[in-house]
Amino acid sequence: MVALVSISDERKRPKLMTVTHKLRASRRMQQVQAPIIPTIEDLIRANPGTISLGQGVVHYGPPQTVHEAISRFWDDPLSHLYGPVEGIDPLREALVEKLALENGIAAQGRAVVVTAGSNMGFLNVLLAISDPGDEFILPGPFYFNQEMAVRIAGCVPVAVPTDVDGQLDLKALESAITPRTRAMVTVSPNNPTGVVYPQADLRAVNRLCLEQGIYHISDEAYEYFLYDGVQHFSPGAITDSAQHTICLYSLSKAYGFASWRIGYASVPESLMGALRKIQDTNVICATVIAQYAAIGALQSGRDYCTPYVAELAAVRAQALDAVESITDKVRLLPGEGAFYLFVEVPGYDDGDLRLATRLIKEHGVAVIPGSAFGVTDRCTLRVSFGALQSASAIDGIGRLMSGLNALA
Amino acid sequence: MVALVSISDERKRPKLMTVTHKLRASRRMQQVQAPIIPTIEDLIRANPGTISLGQGVVHYGPPQTVHEAISRFWDDPLSHLYGPVEGIDPLREALVEKLALENGIAAQGRAVVVTAGSNMGFLNVLLAISDPGDEFILPGPFYFNQEMAVRIAGCVPVAVPTDVDGQLDLKALESAITPRTRAMVTVSPNNPTGVVYPQADLRAVNRLCLEQGIYHISDEAYEYFLYDGVQHFSPGAITDSAQHTICLYSLSKAYGFASWRIGYASVPESLMGALRKIQDTNVICATVIAQYAAIGALQSGRDYCTPYVAELAAVRAQALDAVESITDKVRLLPGEGAFYLFVEVPGYDDGDLRLATRLIKEHGVAVIPGSAFGVTDRCTLRVSFGALQSASAIDGIGRLMSGLNALA
Repeated sequence: MVALVSISDERKRPKLMTVTHKLRASRRMQQVQAPIIPTIEDLIRANPGTISLGQGVVHYGPPQTVHEAISRFWDDPLSHLYGPVEGIDPLREALVEKLALENGIAAQGRAVVVTAGSNMGFLNVLLAISDPGDEFILPGPFYFNQEMAVRIAGCVPVAVPTDVDGQLDLKALESAITPRTRAMVTVSPNNPTGVVYPQADLRAVNRLCLEQGIYHISDEAYEYFLYDGVQHFSPGAITDSAQHTICLYSLSKAYGFASWRIGYASVPESLMGALRKIQDTNVICATVIAQYAAIGALQSGRDYCTPYVAELAAVRAQALDAVESITDKVRLLPGEGAFYLFVEVPGYDDGDLRLATRLIKEHGVAVIPGSAFGVTDRCTLRVSFGALQSASAIDGIGRLMSGLNALA
Repeated sequence: MVALVSISDERKRPKLMTVTHKLRASRRMQQVQAPIIPTIEDLIRANPGTISLGQGVVHYGPPQTVHEAISRFWDDPLSHLYGPVEGIDPLREALVEKLALENGIAAQGRAVVVTAGSNMGFLNVLLAISDPGDEFILPGPFYFNQEMAVRIAGCVPVAVPTDVDGQLDLKALESAITPRTRAMVTVSPNNPTGVVYPQADLRAVNRLCLEQGIYHISDEAYEYFLYDGVQHFSPGAITDSAQHTICLYSLSKAYGFASWRIGYASVPESLMGALRKIQDTNVICATVIAQYAAIGALQSGRDYCTPYVAELAAVRAQALDAVESITDKVRLLPGEGAFYLFVEVPGYDDGDLRLATRLIKEHGVAVIPGSAFGVTDRCTLRVSFGALQSASAIDGIGRLMSGLNALA
């Protein structure tokens, strides 16, 4: 046993007190909300037979082209070594092509980074552009992992409520900008509300960010999930957006690809130095077999999910009808995208987690309380109809409506 | 186009100046070193025929049991959904068993988290226990991604030089502790030096951390790579270490598994709340097919890499002989683990990156400059002999020695 140097009395005194006091999670983590999904999953497991309209996943798996792409992985002897931090070349090339063709995003002045899911894309981008204490403007309700990422980065989430229909309040967004603001975030189609922002509003946000010298982070994970003929718009398609616009995408939803953890970001070229540092330190590279699988998924392309979106549209139509029947009890935000309904329950005062718990225990249906998305001034619920095949989803919505209708 | 609210003159004035000024990476990222591996890889590509003793990888791929485990992945219809943030149960159970049997780490008071590689384990742990401005003590030379992670977390790396043989300087480590210190890091077997710390020193560090109420982060990625009969010791095996000891492991090296991105951490149970938040926000879960593959790798177990380690031992013995022949030019740190040699080149004053560049261009062999590991007071190089089959590795070491011998 090596002798330790003696330490001064001043240091020694608080020792025993600090031992138990200091061994704890950091203050920044104490401010981060606990992930809501595992909480709801625990309740679901404790109440067998519950239909889950909780987690934001689709019910289908990846296309056959994924199998074929993976066989190419096995054939390459270098496959098991680390890949490039920004992603393997053939995947990045396919993504650049997709971004140009589908999103109208030109490669000039931009780069594509493959991340282990779009959550990581958001976190890595945040770390790349922020110092502790910087502010990020999130329209509320926000996607909970984005608010969590802001706090984990040591930064300040500034939630700006959307209007009564879940649309952006451009005046309020502009007023929220301070010298510490580093970026404004938009998620369209929106998680948790399903609301799609009009092109004009996304252009206005992008312009405002350019004028103010802040980044516009555009989360487009649900770009393919649109109803009633609505079209997706990528702010990265705007002229002069290359320098300040960050677009985030995910394969998890469109390709039934959640467990594979592949997302990607289109970022200003000037951020690549910082992003390479973070990718290298965080994940080195996204799992390479999953990157091969992603190439296979992209070969199937958007067409793969089109019939599933049509199915979801039918479920959504039935859900909207069901809500119509109890408009005295609930109000629905008018969303046209993603696979979420955002339900306000004005008459319920016992808290949304309590309502969600009651719905599981008494009515066998799980949804996510709106407080996870920052809604604390009223009782709201996010209803996901993507995770189940149509019949089960419709059953679940039936249970939800009778549960809500049964409220005093 | 939606009209924007007018903004005050005070805000308007600096607008055009700030646009170009503010759109840049954060200050914290500017302080993070650029990853060295891609720099060296670029040089290697520009000089075909170069033998790489650069990146820390092994030359072999994963065991056959990985194939079998993956077929079980395809068979499970739930495989494509998100997995639990802390890892899938069968993998975590296998890891708990491995930690108990091989490392002497009891499950009591601890939890296991599966991460997408051990780099992510380090970063997530850091974020879990630190606030911006907190300090982390890293014995130097340090593993570059750990120093980068500390800066990315908004914290301060405090490098404490090891002694002339690369061993811990316990007095200096203790003196480096301040009220802002959150943890002390040890990497044994060490990257970049290959030095293995004696059990007594690891016990002394662990005791010191307990007394001071700080965490001991023990990186054991190279636990199986030992020579000359040296044994590995896990600080997690120490009595009363559960509350403050974090042990990090990787499958990347032992199982030829780098591209699969699976690592794991044994952490105090009290940190699990914070870690779940970060895992959820960063990666949600490690790629699930890679977790299945990891189960397959663990079924082969340590025996899988034993013959490879024997091969590496033979390469290492030849390398040590080669160094013997030019001891007037270079000095080798006496390492007994990992697959690194850490070479000091006392006579070279032009900088280690310049030397590394010359070695690639003039002698066709790539190594990593020591400055990446924080060594700036002398010229040093890290030589990795794990990435190549024996014959090529020995060729590379031959080139290196003649290159160093040719120095004036």
